[in-house]
Amino acid sequence: MAFTSVQKIRFDDVDGAGIVYYPQFFHLCHAAFEDFFDSAAPVSYPELVGQRRLGFPTVAIESSFSAPLVYGDVAVVELTVERMGRSSVTFGYQIRRKRDGVLCFRASITTVLVSIDTMKPVPLSDEHRSLFERLLPEK
Amino acid sequence: MAFTSVQKIRFDDVDGAGIVYYPQFFHLCHAAFEDFFDSAAPVSYPELVGQRRLGFPTVAIESSFSAPLVYGDVAVVELTVERMGRSSVTFGYQIRRKRDGVLCFRASITTVLVSIDTMKPVPLSDEHRSLFERLLPEK
Amino acid sequence: MAFTSVQKIRFDDVDGAGIVYYPQFFHLCHAAFEDFFDSAAPVSYPELVGQRRLGFPTVAIESSFSAPLVYGDVAVVELTVERMGRSSVTFGYQIRRKRDGVLCFRASITTVLVSIDTMKPVPLSDEHRSLFERLLPEK
Amino acid sequence: MAFTSVQKIRFDDVDGAGIVYYPQFFHLCHAAFEDFFDSAAPVSYPELVGQRRLGFPTVAIESSFSAPLVYGDVAVVELTVERMGRSSVTFGYQIRRKRDGVLCFRASITTVLVSIDTMKPVPLSDEHRSLFERLLPEK
Repeated sequence: MAFTSVQKIRFDDVDGAGIVYYPQFFHLCHAAFEDFFDSAAPVSYPELVGQRRLGFPTVAIESSFSAPLVYGDVAVVELTVERMGRSSVTFGYQIRRKRDGVLCFRASITTVLVSIDTMKPVPLSDEHRSLFERLLPEK
Repeated sequence: MAFTSVQKIRFDDVDGAGIVYYPQFFHLCHAAFEDFFDSAAPVSYPELVGQRRLGFPTVAIESSFSAPLVYGDVAVVELTVERMGRSSVTFGYQIRRKRDGVLCFRASITTVLVSIDTMKPVPLSDEHRSLFERLLPEK
Repeated sequence: MAFTSVQKIRFDDVDGAGIVYYPQFFHLCHAAFEDFFDSAAPVSYPELVGQRRLGFPTVAIESSFSAPLVYGDVAVVELTVERMGRSSVTFGYQIRRKRDGVLCFRASITTVLVSIDTMKPVPLSDEHRSLFERLLPEK
Repeated sequence: MAFTSVQKIRFDDVDGAGIVYYPQFFHLCHAAFEDFFDSAAPVSYPELVGQRRLGFPTVAIESSFSAPLVYGDVAVVELTVERMGRSSVTFGYQIRRKRDGVLCFRASITTVLVSIDTMKPVPLSDEHRSLFERLLPEK
């Protein structure tokens, strides 16, 4: 089942062409990822990073942009899990405009759980597996 | 032949894990794209957008991250053209750390020339074709 | 009476010293200002800017920073109005950390209502006066 | 004597009103501050922060905005030192548009040298005093 995070497009999110600057879409994704941790994980992402010294850096992205967001839009970000490996998790993101439901962006973002101190992969714990399993598509 | 833009990693480019926030890599790419226009195009990107009301929004990204950048690093961004269609241009980006030459990031970013007022595709002019041809790989 | 906006400190809000990058405090203020319009104004800030072509650019700031915010903090931003002139409004901002209530930042930010097309001052309408009067300190 | 840093306004520096988002002016100041360290200090700012665990967080700002910057502008940032205390340094910033020399922004930004680990003030070393003395106004 997907996790949904709703975020306002802010005054500074647009670029010189008056639409949301494309790197900002990935920021919306990361904010949804953090919100998922806040809502569902035993440990928030700040605690995971700051205290457990673990993190999920991005290793690969495949994404497409199909409609613009503008200042005043509200972005509805949907987060799912597409694949889990030993240390890796591929998240699926879809961003829609709230005003008309139009799909603006989709991405598959592959991350790897690493030790922040060594930047080496660490196997996903059972805790993380069960956290992310909730976001797998239902069969 | 590739165009190269060199950019300092700034104090605010890092995230809570102490490495460059991954959406920021796309910002480095866009800055290199703007620098290429400044150095080689008859019309700068601000003029293209502001006066001619044309732009190159991103429609697709495929990218991978292989090493982190940290505060104090200098990013060497290399820009090439991988493909040109009627209205579309796929740019290739590679980002290396200056201190050791390690490849940190590569991306294929497909853009489409559009009218900013209608957001509809516009065929590439001969001016744009010859501009981007310089960035095609040599045979 | 003050308007309060609550905002999460995000993964990218910190700098190379691990605390919120100081310009970001002004971003938190602007987000609160936008939230106030969304909650209380007849016209949202995006509509004011986009349709009525009016805006409140900042002309002067006086601010002090007394404690840091870190990743994982929640910022409680309090917005008041300190003074209203013919076209100008001075907003007062206080930012506290939610975890302990410590005051991190305060600012007086003077803005002027302008026509975005001419950037010339425009007198505050009655609508705006009554909107901002709610934020004046009670006597 | 002032230190000067020249910086392009980038595609994402503008806001929904089409001018540079005001918190971004402080980012331009910080970039100039970092460039000064890179050009004149025995230790760069990343090294000061990362290895010596010292930093100059901002404690007070007084600033005014007199003209906008737009996409395509080049900002000329001038950095001076207005005052030095035992641990504090007040920097003066002026930002002009390159195209017409118009003053857009000025600020007095007071910082304090602190240990990043304790966030307590540390007296300025002779090294730092002589570094900043170069930026004092000539008599």
